[in-house]
Amino acid sequence: MSLIDLSKQVALGVDIGGTNTKFGIVNHRGEVLDKGNLRTDAYDKVEDFIDALYEHVHPMMEKHGTEKHFDGIGVGAPNANYYKGTIELAPNLPWKGVIPFAELMKAKFGLPCTVTNDANAAALGEMLFGAARGMKDFIMITLGTGVGSGIIANGSLIYGHDGFAGELGHTIVKPGGRKHWSTGSEGSLEAYASATGITITAKKMRAEFPESMLNQYPEDAINSKTVYECAIKEDPIAIEVFRYTGQKLGEALANFVMFSSPEAILLFGGVIKAGDFILKPAKLHMERNLLPIFRNKVKLVFSELDEADAAILGASALVWEK
Amino acid sequence: MSLIDLSKQVALGVDIGGTNTKFGIVNHRGEVLDKGNLRTDAYDKVEDFIDALYEHVHPMMEKHGTEKHFDGIGVGAPNANYYKGTIELAPNLPWKGVIPFAELMKAKFGLPCTVTNDANAAALGEMLFGAARGMKDFIMITLGTGVGSGIIANGSLIYGHDGFAGELGHTIVKPGGRKHWSTGSEGSLEAYASATGITITAKKMRAEFPESMLNQYPEDAINSKTVYECAIKEDPIAIEVFRYTGQKLGEALANFVMFSSPEAILLFGGVIKAGDFILKPAKLHMERNLLPIFRNKVKLVFSELDEADAAILGASALVWEK
Repeated sequence: MSLIDLSKQVALGVDIGGTNTKFGIVNHRGEVLDKGNLRTDAYDKVEDFIDALYEHVHPMMEKHGTEKHFDGIGVGAPNANYYKGTIELAPNLPWKGVIPFAELMKAKFGLPCTVTNDANAAALGEMLFGAARGMKDFIMITLGTGVGSGIIANGSLIYGHDGFAGELGHTIVKPGGRKHWSTGSEGSLEAYASATGITITAKKMRAEFPESMLNQYPEDAINSKTVYECAIKEDPIAIEVFRYTGQKLGEALANFVMFSSPEAILLFGGVIKAGDFILKPAKLHMERNLLPIFRNKVKLVFSELDEADAAILGASALVWEK
Repeated sequence: MSLIDLSKQVALGVDIGGTNTKFGIVNHRGEVLDKGNLRTDAYDKVEDFIDALYEHVHPMMEKHGTEKHFDGIGVGAPNANYYKGTIELAPNLPWKGVIPFAELMKAKFGLPCTVTNDANAAALGEMLFGAARGMKDFIMITLGTGVGSGIIANGSLIYGHDGFAGELGHTIVKPGGRKHWSTGSEGSLEAYASATGITITAKKMRAEFPESMLNQYPEDAINSKTVYECAIKEDPIAIEVFRYTGQKLGEALANFVMFSSPEAILLFGGVIKAGDFILKPAKLHMERNLLPIFRNKVKLVFSELDEADAAILGASALVWEK
């Protein structure tokens, strides 16, 4: 019998963040059968991290291994190079230099391993299991501490000639604008539309407007959550913080649409909890910056994936996308 | 004998501009075997235009038809939709509405016909016959009266979900900036880096600087050619016109690189006659706006195709790209 029984095929999805790593066993329907996590920042050497990951994962694999077949491992990680299987110069990870991550994983687990950056993995997860099912052209934007992106065109991820395509958070939306705290660039999308950017905007605006509710919090409590709390209480300054954020996001989205003409733009991440406070101005400023042939065509939607599982699903999707 | 003799395969390439239409018979090596042109704007009805094109082309096809086999027709035209075979609402063409151009051509010529916009056709021409041979990821920017673009990723043109992807000339490089004479958008790349944009910049700058050589010309003689004449005579204002143009172009290119991470950006069109006056500042401002992982990687080069034949070659490439 040479037919493959899809119901028995599973993949291991691993999402590596600066602080935590999440992993899970995922089937073809995008169901997470088992999952766990470990601290990324507890391991100074990548080999120790992979050993620890194996110790965590192996009992799970044993448990499911009698009836399931493991197709491979998909890893989402910052600065991951799909072509080379490496993690390169990732500023938020403890491991410096160029790490041959896929090779090390394959040696330890005995399974093929594919890596890509976390936002690319998220885009694949949406295409296979989420709001982008059936779409061949869409853009995924992750709005968290930073701004990440994954671009699907003609049904495939755009990796570019070197594997690093899709850094939309670092495109410039306001030349000569706000200096980025880490890259030093001036006026990037991330400098405005990330949670970090929103905090900066909020601190500036509450200093300008003493009457704002935002001034009831100590300086270090100002973040996108407290801005949201003030916005739902109708503080006009908090609402303006989100409106300005949405405007910058929308202006950037218009440029992305004129690049790849996607069917939809999917937004994901902590910042989207602000909901319509950001989505409405984003939509408005996207549309008004588009050429007429692009107007009122692009769906601007929030991700449908459960946030706790999305990263694992996305990473596992790497295994099946091939 | 079922093998195809490639040396006998030819395609008809047609490039439709607002004023003139060029056409030619092209072989697999990108050699233009025969060519001609007719006025686009002399035909108010598209059917009359296609009849006239047939009258021009048919004798050529007869001449080569005894020994060559015509594989098909490729057409580059403004607002052409690759998926539908239509030319839609093209502001610079005499035919209004949505024209089923490929269908009309097929009915007249009895050959399959594919259409795309002129910059996409140019990108294909560069990939098959020009400076991008062997590249799978590059961006073509045409700098003429307007600014067009064609984007190749994973070895294929990016058409987007509706066939209209790649309108990089209309991306915003300076929010709230110069109003576009036709679209009404504010601060688009085309408003600065097209020949029309350069003329506007030159007229503004010569008014500010009475000592500039540019003031030796009557108002209607100011264009990218006269700016170039003054720049090579070392007029600092003319040089500044190009430097500013190059800066805006370079800032836009940085954003495009962070989108699709191309191996090269190819520049084509009348504006590139300004050479290093534009290329050097464009390169500088592209690099300084890039994330470090993208720096000093992207080749910024001029097209190698003969300008007179490039449009025909590009259109013919559509036939073989499939």
